[in-house]
Amino acid sequence: MTAPATEGIATRGFAVSGPEATFEPFEFQRREVGPKDILIDILYAGICHSDIHQARAEWEPLIPSLYPMVPGHEIVGRVTKVGSEVTKFKEGDFAGIGCFVDSCRECGACHHGVEQYCIKGSAQTYNSTEMDRTTPTFGGYSKHYVVDEAYALNVNAPEEDLPGVAPLLCAGITTYSPLKRWGVGPGKKVGVVGLGGLGHMAVKIAKAMGAEVTVFSTSPSKEADAAKLGADKFVVSRDADAMGSIAGTFNVIIDTVSADHDINPYISALGLNGVLVVVGMPEKPATVHQASLILGNKAIAGSLIGGIPETQEMLDFCAKHGITSDIELIKPDYIDTAYDRTVKADVRYRFVIDMANA
Amino acid sequence: MTAPATEGIATRGFAVSGPEATFEPFEFQRREVGPKDILIDILYAGICHSDIHQARAEWEPLIPSLYPMVPGHEIVGRVTKVGSEVTKFKEGDFAGIGCFVDSCRECGACHHGVEQYCIKGSAQTYNSTEMDRTTPTFGGYSKHYVVDEAYALNVNAPEEDLPGVAPLLCAGITTYSPLKRWGVGPGKKVGVVGLGGLGHMAVKIAKAMGAEVTVFSTSPSKEADAAKLGADKFVVSRDADAMGSIAGTFNVIIDTVSADHDINPYISALGLNGVLVVVGMPEKPATVHQASLILGNKAIAGSLIGGIPETQEMLDFCAKHGITSDIELIKPDYIDTAYDRTVKADVRYRFVIDMANA
Repeated sequence: MTAPATEGIATRGFAVSGPEATFEPFEFQRREVGPKDILIDILYAGICHSDIHQARAEWEPLIPSLYPMVPGHEIVGRVTKVGSEVTKFKEGDFAGIGCFVDSCRECGACHHGVEQYCIKGSAQTYNSTEMDRTTPTFGGYSKHYVVDEAYALNVNAPEEDLPGVAPLLCAGITTYSPLKRWGVGPGKKVGVVGLGGLGHMAVKIAKAMGAEVTVFSTSPSKEADAAKLGADKFVVSRDADAMGSIAGTFNVIIDTVSADHDINPYISALGLNGVLVVVGMPEKPATVHQASLILGNKAIAGSLIGGIPETQEMLDFCAKHGITSDIELIKPDYIDTAYDRTVKADVRYRFVIDMANA
Repeated sequence: MTAPATEGIATRGFAVSGPEATFEPFEFQRREVGPKDILIDILYAGICHSDIHQARAEWEPLIPSLYPMVPGHEIVGRVTKVGSEVTKFKEGDFAGIGCFVDSCRECGACHHGVEQYCIKGSAQTYNSTEMDRTTPTFGGYSKHYVVDEAYALNVNAPEEDLPGVAPLLCAGITTYSPLKRWGVGPGKKVGVVGLGGLGHMAVKIAKAMGAEVTVFSTSPSKEADAAKLGADKFVVSRDADAMGSIAGTFNVIIDTVSADHDINPYISALGLNGVLVVVGMPEKPATVHQASLILGNKAIAGSLIGGIPETQEMLDFCAKHGITSDIELIKPDYIDTAYDRTVKADVRYRFVIDMANA
């Protein structure tokens, strides 16, 4: 495949041409490096479940899928060119890109550094358009990205950690942001529902924040893994007795499960003023009786990734605490297989594409 | 009706003998005034919708109804006797009693002044038992109450305001507590769903906290009333265009409606980080898609009355701002009619029984 020729920097990625297609090499252009832009030679790109949903058009009609699509919004690379006005980066630095690459810069959300809620709609890293609403965006399954430095992150980690840093740009910030917002720290009891890409990051980050961490999983087989990740306790969520014994004890529970499931057992597990944070989007809506929230001043809260300032804070926090994602590094010709394995939850805990050698 | 004779202070109330019964005079005993107790000559007792649910056994089996039942947990009266160790009250003071009259005093909730969440279960003001789990409690539709001063509130309001102060002990604190918890103040936009006993208090309190207040109601006829109570705006919740025009604009919405209804339009009305507080308990559970919370960092939170310290704070706040409930003062022989009218929402906004002259 080849995108229409435009002026710019020639690059190569891996794209799908439709919902049923497999990944194929894709030649396209990045824009020229403007005064505030940086050019990133992409080294690693994580595979997020949302890549699969969009590549396979599973979120239509809510989010249309634009083809050819180069997914990837968990991007780490090396800065190889900087524009004349760039101040945050110099050539040779490591940089990251997360879920969005621009926003209106004028609305309240943008002014408050929560650009993911830009009132005009931020420019997503792929399957989207630039703020001109015309130029398509292509993601991290590619050799290069040109991005305004204001939407790139400084990555201060040793080079050997970079594959495990890439997933922090989505899975890391998705869990860090609500854990911080809801006051997780020493003395707090945190539950993590589901031990996948998001869940395993939540365990590591909540532990580093000083909390006692319990993993809830339907699979008793995950207990050893949970312990290895640092979890203090493990509860099989299908075991009614076990669930009963921990009722009313959690300050914060982060539910990372996207499959349809009943959230009420987790509301029961919350103690006074407890908060259930939902970051997965099951197809069926949740059913919750108001009384279960009223009797305990409990809350159910949503959370969507994080803005640029908080994403930088998360990266710095993870660097300080030596936190990276557990990953399986793959070559681009394995993406289709990795997708199938991700759907089956057969990955510990994130596939990352080695773009450095692609 | 007469309760089994026990040692104590003879008093008289109004009780129902079963779910279908009408109110009748009821002679019974209050306990002797202990060292830490105060005796209150009840002047006014509000009629809360929960009185009706319990008198008519509508909350069984969750909350069993104990007969004979003297309801009433919005109580204001004059202190006519104080125990030898009482420090908060002296004879002649005005005092209030809310939804509970004792708790274990040992658990975390009790230590933190949120006795409504006492881990052993607080002693409710009526349709309950003392902490001995044996002695039945009878509520405010009566001439006297004996209560430990630790569970009574100081009422510093002029005598003519007392009828309108009584409902603050439940309707006032039920709305004050979440408005405060979720940061309502100047510059905040607050929505109030339903303009009944709770809703009209929420309007007054949120206004006094400095917020811009919008009332949501199914009845366009309530617009003038909302304005009279101090609301800045009024939205007919059945008007899809009107609801669309205010989407994404509220910081806090307090939903006081107990009838089954769809809460999703109110989640849509919330802005970034907005919180929908539910204080009514509809029969059917709410159905909410996780995505509607995730896209906006929104939350749904429950809230249950308030503890003694916060109830005192609320009474002082209301006294300072001249806030009382709008009430219709009735004689005890009108209670049955008042119940029927309350069920039909035919009251602006609370019935209060004149026990002073009963």
